Amino acid sequence: MSYNLLAGKKGIIFGALNEQSIAWRVAERAVEEGAEIILTNTAVAVRMGQLNELGEKLGAKVVPADATKEEELEVVFQEAIKTFGKVDFVLHSIGMSPNVRKGRSYDDLDYKMLQTTLDISAVSFHKMLQVAKRLDAIAEGGSVVALTYIAAQRTFVGYGDMADAKSLLESIARSFGYIYGREKGVRINTVSQSPTVTTAGSGVKGMSDLLDFAEDLSPLGNADANDCADYCITLFSDLTRKITMQNLFNDGGFSSMGMSLDAIEVFSKGRDAHK
Amino acid sequence: MSYNLLAGKKGIIFGALNEQSIAWRVAERAVEEGAEIILTNTAVAVRMGQLNELGEKLGAKVVPADATKEEELEVVFQEAIKTFGKVDFVLHSIGMSPNVRKGRSYDDLDYKMLQTTLDISAVSFHKMLQVAKRLDAIAEGGSVVALTYIAAQRTFVGYGDMADAKSLLESIARSFGYIYGREKGVRINTVSQSPTVTTAGSGVKGMSDLLDFAEDLSPLGNADANDCADYCITLFSDLTRKITMQNLFNDGGFSSMGMSLDAIEVFSKGRDAHK
Amino acid sequence: MSYNLLAGKKGIIFGALNEQSIAWRVAERAVEEGAEIILTNTAVAVRMGQLNELGEKLGAKVVPADATKEEELEVVFQEAIKTFGKVDFVLHSIGMSPNVRKGRSYDDLDYKMLQTTLDISAVSFHKMLQVAKRLDAIAEGGSVVALTYIAAQRTFVGYGDMADAKSLLESIARSFGYIYGREKGVRINTVSQSPTVTTAGSGVKGMSDLLDFAEDLSPLGNADANDCADYCITLFSDLTRKITMQNLFNDGGFSSMGMSLDAIEVFSKGRDAHK
Amino acid sequence: MSYNLLAGKKGIIFGALNEQSIAWRVAERAVEEGAEIILTNTAVAVRMGQLNELGEKLGAKVVPADATKEEELEVVFQEAIKTFGKVDFVLHSIGMSPNVRKGRSYDDLDYKMLQTTLDISAVSFHKMLQVAKRLDAIAEGGSVVALTYIAAQRTFVGYGDMADAKSLLESIARSFGYIYGREKGVRINTVSQSPTVTTAGSGVKGMSDLLDFAEDLSPLGNADANDCADYCITLFSDLTRKITMQNLFNDGGFSSMGMSLDAIEVFSKGRDAHK
Repeated sequence: MSYNLLAGKKGIIFGALNEQSIAWRVAERAVEEGAEIILTNTAVAVRMGQLNELGEKLGAKVVPADATKEEELEVVFQEAIKTFGKVDFVLHSIGMSPNVRKGRSYDDLDYKMLQTTLDISAVSFHKMLQVAKRLDAIAEGGSVVALTYIAAQRTFVGYGDMADAKSLLESIARSFGYIYGREKGVRINTVSQSPTVTTAGSGVKGMSDLLDFAEDLSPLGNADANDCADYCITLFSDLTRKITMQNLFNDGGFSSMGMSLDAIEVFSKGRDAHK
Repeated sequence: MSYNLLAGKKGIIFGALNEQSIAWRVAERAVEEGAEIILTNTAVAVRMGQLNELGEKLGAKVVPADATKEEELEVVFQEAIKTFGKVDFVLHSIGMSPNVRKGRSYDDLDYKMLQTTLDISAVSFHKMLQVAKRLDAIAEGGSVVALTYIAAQRTFVGYGDMADAKSLLESIARSFGYIYGREKGVRINTVSQSPTVTTAGSGVKGMSDLLDFAEDLSPLGNADANDCADYCITLFSDLTRKITMQNLFNDGGFSSMGMSLDAIEVFSKGRDAHK
Repeated sequence: MSYNLLAGKKGIIFGALNEQSIAWRVAERAVEEGAEIILTNTAVAVRMGQLNELGEKLGAKVVPADATKEEELEVVFQEAIKTFGKVDFVLHSIGMSPNVRKGRSYDDLDYKMLQTTLDISAVSFHKMLQVAKRLDAIAEGGSVVALTYIAAQRTFVGYGDMADAKSLLESIARSFGYIYGREKGVRINTVSQSPTVTTAGSGVKGMSDLLDFAEDLSPLGNADANDCADYCITLFSDLTRKITMQNLFNDGGFSSMGMSLDAIEVFSKGRDAHK
Repeated sequence: MSYNLLAGKKGIIFGALNEQSIAWRVAERAVEEGAEIILTNTAVAVRMGQLNELGEKLGAKVVPADATKEEELEVVFQEAIKTFGKVDFVLHSIGMSPNVRKGRSYDDLDYKMLQTTLDISAVSFHKMLQVAKRLDAIAEGGSVVALTYIAAQRTFVGYGDMADAKSLLESIARSFGYIYGREKGVRINTVSQSPTVTTAGSGVKGMSDLLDFAEDLSPLGNADANDCADYCITLFSDLTRKITMQNLFNDGGFSSMGMSLDAIEVFSKGRDAHK
């Protein structure tokens, strides 16, 4: 179903890999809603994933770029300027922790890896914004969204230094949101999504238990990639023009829950089983 | 401009008084987006305001009701059931403090008046939800929004016991959001709006200075009633089905600002003038 | 062990009932730390509980008073003024919900009872402060603490309308904290305590499961009444003179946790048992 | 005045430079309260500042160390183990942004400098904790505090990438607080201090206007270095043993204020002067 909410709008989607990716669904929904887009991910991801197929299906250019490198980000935004003039929306869906991947516990971090975690998952967002602003690539009133997770506010076992990266990411959204808002009317928000089964998410140990817990705690259940895509569409649209510098939970209510009936029943059974 | 975002949807709008009212604009936008609605306010407000004209213009029934009285709320929801079957969305835009109106300072509250403030501005929301749920008046996946203000989190001089009422209101949204979400998939959120020039808002002393300050502090400036209406439309739509129990700031970035360039310059001039 | 942290200080403790009460432990610790105090609770509580024994043990007057009645609060503060001149600290540890006691679910509240819940658990705090300020009963730089619970921020099944009362209480602490701070340098904070086994807490259904969950989720385990008393002492002391309008978690880390190793293991067992 | 609150306790103070430093005052107060301490800062800071004089006055060893280098942090903690056995408390008061110093605006960051900002101001805290835990240098029930600023939550013009560093720092406090709490009962908190005139703070442009604004907005006025030292003492003491993973505002109420009478009057004058 389409409302043509993004008719005439142009955007860039960072971070789609395959059908599981949230960014993949956002790209599809944006085009359904009338937008034209450019897709981008690292050269490796483009080779390994199915981004080219998505590009063909959606009639979207695919521009390989490493979001940690300013010069490659410039290529993306220059390409967008050439193709579209300016862009109206940008999605940042990029995150990776070598420490988590290698199974290093949070009290045994490798600091080179931590730097990589921060650089890929958070500083890349600043670079993207700084390059975009320098090139004046985002239209007045444009909208930028980065995907994040509630580990930025509360500690989840196994989430490791990604929690810190997400805190940094959300801070960058606020800090840059002030500047870009003041000068160009561009709004910048983060969407804090339910735990979601994606290639990226699957690296987190005990992910399946956490998904179950979140499902039981959230009155509406976990939000999935489709829900997130729908929500991002509203944030890219003209209906949310004064929303900026916010961290917005798309999580079925999880973030406002302390304990639900369903979750406490499971927990109680677990205590009994333990005895 | 319409996207037909609410095509086929039915709703109830509580609290429209005249063209300045946020609820008035929400009603107009909802109908523009394809919804059918019922309008309601107290019998006095219906007589004194222009709600009947709005009803005629929008083809909407006007049902007078005091939202602090369960039996009158029942009349509204029964009427909605008779007219629509079930409703898909509800807006609560009701608030009033006799203490603020009478100019009583916060350390000299009249407690009967405080009770009235809480009853009108917050408990009415619980009554509305309890009546709606008892009558099973809201459709599966429906959406309820109440309007609030950041005084629920931070103290603003002159806002008095309305701050406490808004805190209570936001808590009710969470508490009932859990129950209604779990049992019927109904989401309940509050929208925390920039200070807005309305008949209700005009009772707050120093409102004009506060509006100026908020305008200068917010990178996108204050959100007005039209911005709020647009935002409410997205929350009533099917694109935000997993958002619940949230307090969502529609404020041009105010809530995430500590100090802006514009505001500090005015402030600095004020200090100089003071010397 | 005593540090004489409250040497020469005078205080009033509202809400001690028996040895389980947090207020009871605060009273004992305050006296250990060199303070002189007055104890107060309702006439019924004084008759039914062991407050008189505590008074004898601590050399403290016991003044029966209903904290929902301004005139009885005046008696307490007048007595304090007569005995001490002014007081340096006040503890509010009062809360009760007839709806929770009667087992009414949150979507079937009795509104008379809700009013009682709010009046006893939250508005009493405003009355206490308003009376104290009118009588100028709290010394410059004095400190007021009210006990609260994280249900004010997140929904816990079974906590019912007490959640809303706690939100209101915390808002009152902020609103009045601004006024009393500005005019008299009096600070007002709330301490948000781990779930604690007390006569009051025992009314909450499923309290035992919730205590277990909180214990497993909190890295330092639940804070008990002794921990809370120690913490209150620091807040009454001269070492925290610029802390005001804050909600301070004394909870072993619970409020900043999303999921712990211990809790997810229990939860995972519960899921297995369920299959 | 001393309460002997830290009698028998041993600690390490990172970041004292001169009499203006908050860490300097914390060191003095800790010793007044009965603690023995080790002082540390970079070799350059030790040479340029007056740390050696402070060491002599307090009978404290001064160990030069760069807190961004694990091997130098090891020297500090090894020295502490040799001198004290284990330590009971640690203060992290370290922060510096080359971008802010060089006057680079936030949308023109140098990314090498950003990395330095994050490394010095935030990652150093993780390194300190990781080294301490590996050496088992902190006693069961020990307490760690890092100083931070509300720019981690709200954007302040001129604070630049230090805002992001503080967000990262606060996240590290939570993430490591979970692990160190669970395994050793060590609590980790951040104290979010009023803007304070220090050598570090003086680099922020418009600092003086911001100090004035904070003073006018905060009902108790700004907290100074002495207030902060007093507060840290309570957090190092045994009276706060269940407080962990918290960000604690020592700010005269600033963080809970939206607008005060004093500040709006100055602001209003500034608007008039502007016309």
